[in-house]
Amino acid sequence: MRDKVSIFREKIKEKKMLDSMLALLQWDLETQAPKGGYELISKMIGDLSLKSYELTTNKEFIKLVENLYKEKESLDEIERKEVEILIEDIEKIKVIPSDEYRLYSELTAKAQGIWEHAREKKDFKIFAPVLKEIFEYNKKFIKYRGKDEDVYSQLLCDYEKGMNIEKLDKFFEELKNEIVPLLKEIELQKRDFQGKIKFQESKEKQKELSKFILKYLGFDFQRGIISESTHPFTLTVNRNDVRLTTKYIEELPFSSLYSSIHEGGHGIYEQGVENVLEETILADGSSMGIHESQSRFYENIIGRSEEFWSGIKDKVENYYPNLKKLSVKEVYKGINQVEKSLIRVEADELTYSLHIMVRYEIEKGIMNGKYNVDELPQIWNEKMMEYLGVEPKDDVEGVLQDVHWSCGLIGYFPSYALGNVYSVQIYEAMKKDINVEGALERGELIKIKEWLGEKIHKYGKLKTPKEIIINICGEDLNSKYYIEYLKNKYREIYN
Amino acid sequence: MRDKVSIFREKIKEKKMLDSMLALLQWDLETQAPKGGYELISKMIGDLSLKSYELTTNKEFIKLVENLYKEKESLDEIERKEVEILIEDIEKIKVIPSDEYRLYSELTAKAQGIWEHAREKKDFKIFAPVLKEIFEYNKKFIKYRGKDEDVYSQLLCDYEKGMNIEKLDKFFEELKNEIVPLLKEIELQKRDFQGKIKFQESKEKQKELSKFILKYLGFDFQRGIISESTHPFTLTVNRNDVRLTTKYIEELPFSSLYSSIHEGGHGIYEQGVENVLEETILADGSSMGIHESQSRFYENIIGRSEEFWSGIKDKVENYYPNLKKLSVKEVYKGINQVEKSLIRVEADELTYSLHIMVRYEIEKGIMNGKYNVDELPQIWNEKMMEYLGVEPKDDVEGVLQDVHWSCGLIGYFPSYALGNVYSVQIYEAMKKDINVEGALERGELIKIKEWLGEKIHKYGKLKTPKEIIINICGEDLNSKYYIEYLKNKYREIYN
Repeated sequence: MRDKVSIFREKIKEKKMLDSMLALLQWDLETQAPKGGYELISKMIGDLSLKSYELTTNKEFIKLVENLYKEKESLDEIERKEVEILIEDIEKIKVIPSDEYRLYSELTAKAQGIWEHAREKKDFKIFAPVLKEIFEYNKKFIKYRGKDEDVYSQLLCDYEKGMNIEKLDKFFEELKNEIVPLLKEIELQKRDFQGKIKFQESKEKQKELSKFILKYLGFDFQRGIISESTHPFTLTVNRNDVRLTTKYIEELPFSSLYSSIHEGGHGIYEQGVENVLEETILADGSSMGIHESQSRFYENIIGRSEEFWSGIKDKVENYYPNLKKLSVKEVYKGINQVEKSLIRVEADELTYSLHIMVRYEIEKGIMNGKYNVDELPQIWNEKMMEYLGVEPKDDVEGVLQDVHWSCGLIGYFPSYALGNVYSVQIYEAMKKDINVEGALERGELIKIKEWLGEKIHKYGKLKTPKEIIINICGEDLNSKYYIEYLKNKYREIYN
Repeated sequence: MRDKVSIFREKIKEKKMLDSMLALLQWDLETQAPKGGYELISKMIGDLSLKSYELTTNKEFIKLVENLYKEKESLDEIERKEVEILIEDIEKIKVIPSDEYRLYSELTAKAQGIWEHAREKKDFKIFAPVLKEIFEYNKKFIKYRGKDEDVYSQLLCDYEKGMNIEKLDKFFEELKNEIVPLLKEIELQKRDFQGKIKFQESKEKQKELSKFILKYLGFDFQRGIISESTHPFTLTVNRNDVRLTTKYIEELPFSSLYSSIHEGGHGIYEQGVENVLEETILADGSSMGIHESQSRFYENIIGRSEEFWSGIKDKVENYYPNLKKLSVKEVYKGINQVEKSLIRVEADELTYSLHIMVRYEIEKGIMNGKYNVDELPQIWNEKMMEYLGVEPKDDVEGVLQDVHWSCGLIGYFPSYALGNVYSVQIYEAMKKDINVEGALERGELIKIKEWLGEKIHKYGKLKTPKEIIINICGEDLNSKYYIEYLKNKYREIYN
């Protein structure tokens, strides 16, 4: 038995080494490689990805894991959890004929290029055929599993364990009923809070502020760095080397600030996973939804609160002297301006989940046969008009805006909305334990980090999202707190 | 036969891929990785290095190369050259018992740490025992080759084909006779040209100037980048991805400028290797000496000339406005100030080769048994006093200043001096073909790059240093031009 475990450990170690190397190459490609280097680095990434994939999908390894699973009672808690997660993955992969899997991999590998081309031409029709295939493969692969549950719910589950259509329908229905009218109410007022915080700031000052703010939140620069890229992201080499990016736009000095705080939330999570999990597959976030809850918690609940600005405004003025002539309230209102925007990644806190709702309804509609891929631009635009009151002028502003589908990520978008819901539940629980407002006003953000570390971060993947949330809040996912939070916050701002 | 060639090509491709990956990891480690990431990345570098080494030193591969060598007449020019180079390497490695080689690798792996420790304690005695061993292994390994030539000449040859004690003795003798008196003459004058170019400049402006100057020289930013590190270096992923670093010091704005130009010379060489050599082991500089000739050519002969400043001064003023109040002549004299410095990497053009001479005489003395490692601090300091008129106050300023010996690089230092000598020979030849002064004054540096590309860069390792120099100059290495150049330049400045 112990022999099997040590072979298992060796293989996992090998895989983790490959994945760390992949992370470094990906980082290089996206933050600094010159154009001339793209081809070679992409080739390396392709080769290593395949190697990493094969390490844990070859017959011998699968057999090893299955044997360990049979004797799982004699494994320790960590090993058992690893084996359970791997068994779930294996079950899903095993049923797919290997030639189909290969074809699908090739398809998604080329799909991103086609999506980019369609964006250049502003024409969804270029992307439609390949998108259709991607949806079809996803349907087929799920059906191979031979389960009773509906196809889309199973896909949702792959990204967020325990999720299904029923829960999400209920959530989005409430959101529609509560937030869409609130948005219309706000929009009628046509207030401009944002005008006051519109100024230019040099990239250098923005960079310095990003570093300051990350330290302020508790991101550890001995075990992490921040750099620049076209789309901000967080990438983990291992828990001692966590890397963030942001994007600096001179005309939008709050854009880099909030994207740094957002990525900082992801980064603090990754740095906070317990050391003992480092060499296991559990050194990762519990789920995408929980991961997103941490970034959104820092970005919105903390970073867009009045108390946060009370505690930090004079410090930010060292970097953005334009803030000196504004009150805390004016900054607070400025950064919480509601706008009916077309682009998800630029959306404010109030409208963000409505963007996700559009995608959720479309994915569900395609998976259950209600919608056709060819009709997507029209459906997209209608839904945007209905929920947000705006209409894209072309497909780039509409259905072509996100990369996710081209990568085969169907059922992934709802994680973003779940992150919002979780973040408010976590906030409510945190307030019972510590004086959050006081901590923000006094700049003691370390207390917040420590609380999150103890309740969420240290567990990595050792606990499921459900276990984490019930453990913290005494109940499972419940969107009422989120909806209440939004209503209170925005009624107060717009009153 | 063609089968053997295609197996050979596959192996080389594999090795080059590993080496490119190693370059990327090394780059990451030295330019940006957080402290927490050092351990993992160093481990990756160790693993991949071993893999890369084993790829071309295993018995099967050696046999393949030996077989190809037997039929080398039927290989094309490029393949033949690759096989010849590999055979030479194999001959050297084959004679070393593998357990001794392993011990030596372990020794040099730990020696750098000991060297660093000795530097911290400012005490050569800490480093002496391991340095003694390194010298002994080098002696022993050379003796295994069973050749008649003296040991140190054979070591010199490993870094610069065709080099030996006889040639270098003659060169350094001339240098000693001509430059040491000139330096004394200059020093008596105690002129301060440098005072005028002493000002502060922000890191941002220095960065912008570095990019400008590299473009001006012809470095291709589609196929390269510049970043920062503690010690400036150039690193090649492949010819389409060449990376430079520099170091920005606010009080020394010319330091980053000249280190960028220096590394730019290396980088332009690497970018200029012909495409057809890309997948071969010939995509590299002909030798360290020739490589250094390119960096020094750009840094000194071009970059420290009066004509260069005539052509560029008004452009540099956009970044360093302090230059506006100075004449071209004042800048020219300022950047050519002669100083008797203790540290090689900070030495000016006139004294640089004297620093190399100190190292050359010491290496030679140890290899032929004249000197003992334990006496090195004293010998070092005496020679510094004799040639440069200065004495280190401790071992860090003296014998412990360079990393090379701790890495096992014995016989490597003279390449730097050879680079100086070559660079002037190349300059003399270039002047016969093109109007260099005119090109500099008109800012047409591309003409210079093209000439070097045609005569040197495109060949990569396809030609030996000797072939390159004879091809360009009609004669082999000849130090008289270098010595004449220094005498004329510095007599003019100091007159």
